Amino acid sequence: MLSPALTPFTADLEPDRPAFVGFCNWLLEQGANGLAVFGTTSEANSLSQRERMSLLEHLVEKGIPAAKLMPGTGAANLPDAVELTRHALAFGAGGVLVLPPFYYKNMPEDGIYAYYAGVIDRVARPDLKLYLYHIPQMSGVAITPTLIARLRKQYGGVIAGLKDSSGVWDNVAMLLKEFPEMAIFPASEKFLLPALKLGAAGCISATANYQVANIRRLIDTPDGEAREKLDGEVGKIRSVFEAYPLVPALKAAIAAKLKNPNWRIVRPPFAQLPEEKRRDLLAALGMKD
Amino acid sequence: MLSPALTPFTADLEPDRPAFVGFCNWLLEQGANGLAVFGTTSEANSLSQRERMSLLEHLVEKGIPAAKLMPGTGAANLPDAVELTRHALAFGAGGVLVLPPFYYKNMPEDGIYAYYAGVIDRVARPDLKLYLYHIPQMSGVAITPTLIARLRKQYGGVIAGLKDSSGVWDNVAMLLKEFPEMAIFPASEKFLLPALKLGAAGCISATANYQVANIRRLIDTPDGEAREKLDGEVGKIRSVFEAYPLVPALKAAIAAKLKNPNWRIVRPPFAQLPEEKRRDLLAALGMKD
Repeated sequence: MLSPALTPFTADLEPDRPAFVGFCNWLLEQGANGLAVFGTTSEANSLSQRERMSLLEHLVEKGIPAAKLMPGTGAANLPDAVELTRHALAFGAGGVLVLPPFYYKNMPEDGIYAYYAGVIDRVARPDLKLYLYHIPQMSGVAITPTLIARLRKQYGGVIAGLKDSSGVWDNVAMLLKEFPEMAIFPASEKFLLPALKLGAAGCISATANYQVANIRRLIDTPDGEAREKLDGEVGKIRSVFEAYPLVPALKAAIAAKLKNPNWRIVRPPFAQLPEEKRRDLLAALGMKD
Repeated sequence: MLSPALTPFTADLEPDRPAFVGFCNWLLEQGANGLAVFGTTSEANSLSQRERMSLLEHLVEKGIPAAKLMPGTGAANLPDAVELTRHALAFGAGGVLVLPPFYYKNMPEDGIYAYYAGVIDRVARPDLKLYLYHIPQMSGVAITPTLIARLRKQYGGVIAGLKDSSGVWDNVAMLLKEFPEMAIFPASEKFLLPALKLGAAGCISATANYQVANIRRLIDTPDGEAREKLDGEVGKIRSVFEAYPLVPALKAAIAAKLKNPNWRIVRPPFAQLPEEKRRDLLAALGMKD
């Protein structure tokens, strides 16, 4: 199970490096097998190219094991995606999570294929482990089964897996059936138990930022009554967050948990939770301010 | 009337600098008042940050008057948008066309406002002329009248205008009525005559790449039968292109016009027109290969 990692900012909207390192260490200590840094929940697409590279370097320099990192290295354009992917591999990242090019819409499958092929061919590293990132509600571009099959046929195990953030169970189940040799990660812990039964690699859930320890326990608990009960608790927390804009809500909850109000800060286009909603959220989670 | 400018690539997908300079000069000679470089039609979001800056510098070095340029300087993230905007002003650009942050969807208006305010405040140049870029079918983020009003209230004439690429006439008409002090550009030349009657600044149309001289003549011809006839011809050419993926079709037509097949090359996620469609397009335009 990988945890995405929120990116903390200072009051002037700069990345807060010490808070970021501390948080990544905390997620690993709480039981994450690895960290999907610079994903959607990380506000990665609100970071510049240089910031993404500089923050990754900083994590590795400060002792976060690079092999446990699966940074997002996708971009709207091919050269930036190539640069980020090369950079992540140079720093020893265990894998990379790659968004499709997300500005242009209704593009032909040939164009999306050419982007992924362009990244792989230009990076030219047989040890590349590329995870496709299916999150059509944000990217506007779906990773279809025919695209995956074409990429697997050409590049084999380099196409190591896929994160399915669509929130559509039928899609997760289809991918697990069609691509048993790939590491498929649903994004919601709600799908964790049924997905594990079908061979999923785990999950990469935004709310792991808040309840990574619960998800760890859920995975480690054998089938039975205790596991069902735990699954209910995990699902309940997930449901609380789903009633709010996810990133600002997670940051508000982490700010309360770590007693550091700066954690509430988000970059545009996100906006902080209004004060009343923030209080409602903390109450629903049973937290004190 | 500004013409967007297509970005030519070499066979290895690098920007073709001499072809770009030549094409920009040609558009100006054909009657464009200015050039909206690095917009959607320019595949700007398939270019890296460095490529965008380097190409702008190259145009200015090669003698394209900077005051006639309105480069796209928006980005998914605030720091890159700030850097591109500062850079464009440093090189003397007459204005900048700024996309909203386009990765995250369903963001609150406060967040979109904070992005534009962040660009303007950080750039901190009273001579900034910022044009808002409304193209929700690509960006996934609308520029609403309430957002425009908030920005105008805070920043006055710095919010100089807006390009409306929505293709919705009622939206163009509403903007012309609500914001008479702004330079409003519809993106389709189909709206040019009715929009001019309502006070539009002209148009910034993708197909100007192909028929800039026609659009120039249409603007310069006084009301009457000749103008109506010309408007019909311009609309007919627009309609031909609308039956194809626009950017690959424009590039195929320019390749035939300039007798340089390299002009057909697009970056992913675009794909070149299939050969049969390319022939159909040229036939519909009455062009020889």
